[in-house]
Amino acid sequence: MFALLIEASAAARIPLAMLLVFASAKLLSELFERLGQPGIVGEILAGILIGPQVLGWMAPNETLTTLADLGVMFLLFRVGLEVKASELMKVGGSAMLVATTGVIVPFVMGWGICRLWGAPTLESIFIGAAMVATSVGITAQVLAAAGLLQTRAARVILAAAVVDDVLGLIVLAAVSGVARGSVSYLDIALTGALALGFTVFVAMFGTRAVRRIMPKVQARMALVESQFALGMTLLFALSLLAVYAGVAAIVGAFLAGMALSEAVDRRVLDLTNGVTELLVPFFLVGIGLHFDISAFANPSMMALAGVILAAALVSKFIGCGLGALGMGRTDALRVGVGMIPRGEVGMVVAQIGLRMGAIEQSYYGIVVFLSIATTMFAPPLLKMAFRGEAPARIEPEDIVRLG
Amino acid sequence: MFALLIEASAAARIPLAMLLVFASAKLLSELFERLGQPGIVGEILAGILIGPQVLGWMAPNETLTTLADLGVMFLLFRVGLEVKASELMKVGGSAMLVATTGVIVPFVMGWGICRLWGAPTLESIFIGAAMVATSVGITAQVLAAAGLLQTRAARVILAAAVVDDVLGLIVLAAVSGVARGSVSYLDIALTGALALGFTVFVAMFGTRAVRRIMPKVQARMALVESQFALGMTLLFALSLLAVYAGVAAIVGAFLAGMALSEAVDRRVLDLTNGVTELLVPFFLVGIGLHFDISAFANPSMMALAGVILAAALVSKFIGCGLGALGMGRTDALRVGVGMIPRGEVGMVVAQIGLRMGAIEQSYYGIVVFLSIATTMFAPPLLKMAFRGEAPARIEPEDIVRLG
Repeated sequence: MFALLIEASAAARIPLAMLLVFASAKLLSELFERLGQPGIVGEILAGILIGPQVLGWMAPNETLTTLADLGVMFLLFRVGLEVKASELMKVGGSAMLVATTGVIVPFVMGWGICRLWGAPTLESIFIGAAMVATSVGITAQVLAAAGLLQTRAARVILAAAVVDDVLGLIVLAAVSGVARGSVSYLDIALTGALALGFTVFVAMFGTRAVRRIMPKVQARMALVESQFALGMTLLFALSLLAVYAGVAAIVGAFLAGMALSEAVDRRVLDLTNGVTELLVPFFLVGIGLHFDISAFANPSMMALAGVILAAALVSKFIGCGLGALGMGRTDALRVGVGMIPRGEVGMVVAQIGLRMGAIEQSYYGIVVFLSIATTMFAPPLLKMAFRGEAPARIEPEDIVRLG
Repeated sequence: MFALLIEASAAARIPLAMLLVFASAKLLSELFERLGQPGIVGEILAGILIGPQVLGWMAPNETLTTLADLGVMFLLFRVGLEVKASELMKVGGSAMLVATTGVIVPFVMGWGICRLWGAPTLESIFIGAAMVATSVGITAQVLAAAGLLQTRAARVILAAAVVDDVLGLIVLAAVSGVARGSVSYLDIALTGALALGFTVFVAMFGTRAVRRIMPKVQARMALVESQFALGMTLLFALSLLAVYAGVAAIVGAFLAGMALSEAVDRRVLDLTNGVTELLVPFFLVGIGLHFDISAFANPSMMALAGVILAAALVSKFIGCGLGALGMGRTDALRVGVGMIPRGEVGMVVAQIGLRMGAIEQSYYGIVVFLSIATTMFAPPLLKMAFRGEAPARIEPEDIVRLG
């Protein structure tokens, strides 16, 4: 029956993909919520279930990848809309410390374990690098859904994740250089400086620029929903500039949201919510679709996967927790847990290693496994870490209205 | 400069495509609105401008096609949300008549002109068939944006467009049979019956079923935005079933919206608006991207293209206007104008003819030209035809709330 459905005509391709991904995500999300577990874990599990390794109803393809990429872009944009740049700046110091220790500890642990296991140096370095980058989407979604974005720990996590992206870029540039056999420290320094410069510049001046320019432009526009149109344009423009500056598109999306946070009406938030409600399941299911059992090819690899997963959980928790210890034990615990998910970023690092011939397929499988597993472990841990914190949802009155 | 941007890395591909399409659409829409012209024409023109024949910044690709298909699906879904099935049923007789005369007149005129021009029989039949199918997306967008969906003429146009889709399917099946050399009247009758049966069944019982089942399901759900999740699932499911029943996915999308129209909160409309605001420009720009100058290969083809375009405008206007004459002259005029756009449906017919070897590339060019041109002519004509009609926007109080 399903084989027939899936081989249906080209016209059925899009509604079929939409239905399978969206409905399975929501069904498992509902099931997990009823069991008292975070729905987000159910949505990733839906991807594993309908994916190539279990039911085989769906495989990653260009359409799904596009929708997933847009999904995480809009997710970070929406999160940005609820965060004021000035408040993020206040936690800049803590975030810098958290991100730095949160990069060093996982890298050293990943590299060390692989070396002790007898893996080649280059492979060990790549596994270490794949353990570095935090995927902020998962944590952001959990905190946003629980109305906890206004907490101090949430701000530090968001700011640290942005810094982490820049540091991850530097680590990746260095590792790629090692794989090619020539590391140019000048190149790496310039790459890092450009990425950091772009991020800090937009974070510092974006809000002010938007607050000054937006009302003037909007007042002259004839279009309906002109504010949303301007917001979308800024979102896509900053996402693109972020890629050119070397950081991820989602960092640009987050910065765009933050720049707009003090200048848009509630209406823009509502319209954006429509897009995120539709597309975020594609991001989550997309993570699950990449699930790969090749990490369990033999008992030795299975054991290594287990050890690496434990190290991934512990190293980020300890690394980031240590960096946040100055904020008190409760917040340090929250920040440590919030930085655990690796999501798609680790997979990208491993894919580059695979393409350069620096790592083998089986090690790639381990990275995919650790990315998905850390992502699924984090939401219930986060829920526990933030227990007792009252949710603060944004009300229409909180949004600064224009003129 | 732009060549450099366009050849950018894979990570830049999605934000770049989003920015180019969305921003150019909104820019030209704004420009057209200021000139007192419908913004929708500007958005199609944006597609022609950034497309392969003018600036060459964008070409149709899988990602853009997906977003365009989703865009028109959500457009018809949103229109359906503002239409009650019972009110559409009331105009069923008029709509049936409008659709039938609106299929016969353009087919006979298209076929006749091509025959007089000396085109082969089969080619003439395909051009005639390509002139049949109305693309309701454009008219729906114009009427929705102007708040005119509640007028009687708008209802007749929507109902007639749905019937038109079924008739177009029958014409296409017959024409394909002729091209293959064997027409099975039984097959055509069964195809038509299935399509019509599905459409009438969902239109008649969909609203009642949703009104009965939805509140019960929703009351038991733990998910936030559960109504939107249920609505999206129904949208994708009915779009898929529509394709299996032989009609277009957008007919299913429209029926899903209509079935939900009396059972959902204002919130679902707001969230859906977010998705349509984002995706409809991709549908409109997508039409423009297909612009092809091969219809103007030589003076003779150019003349034929002009004559065919005039025939396409006049034949649909007369055909549908005649069918609607019983509603009075004003409404007949409105219905006639509203059914003019051919949009992407004619292109699909021509593509099938091209693939079957039934028509030549230059005739395909003519069909693409007439599709785009009728689509661009319709909005200003519609604006004129509906002049003096007071817009009626749906207010939150008008939406039936649950429980």
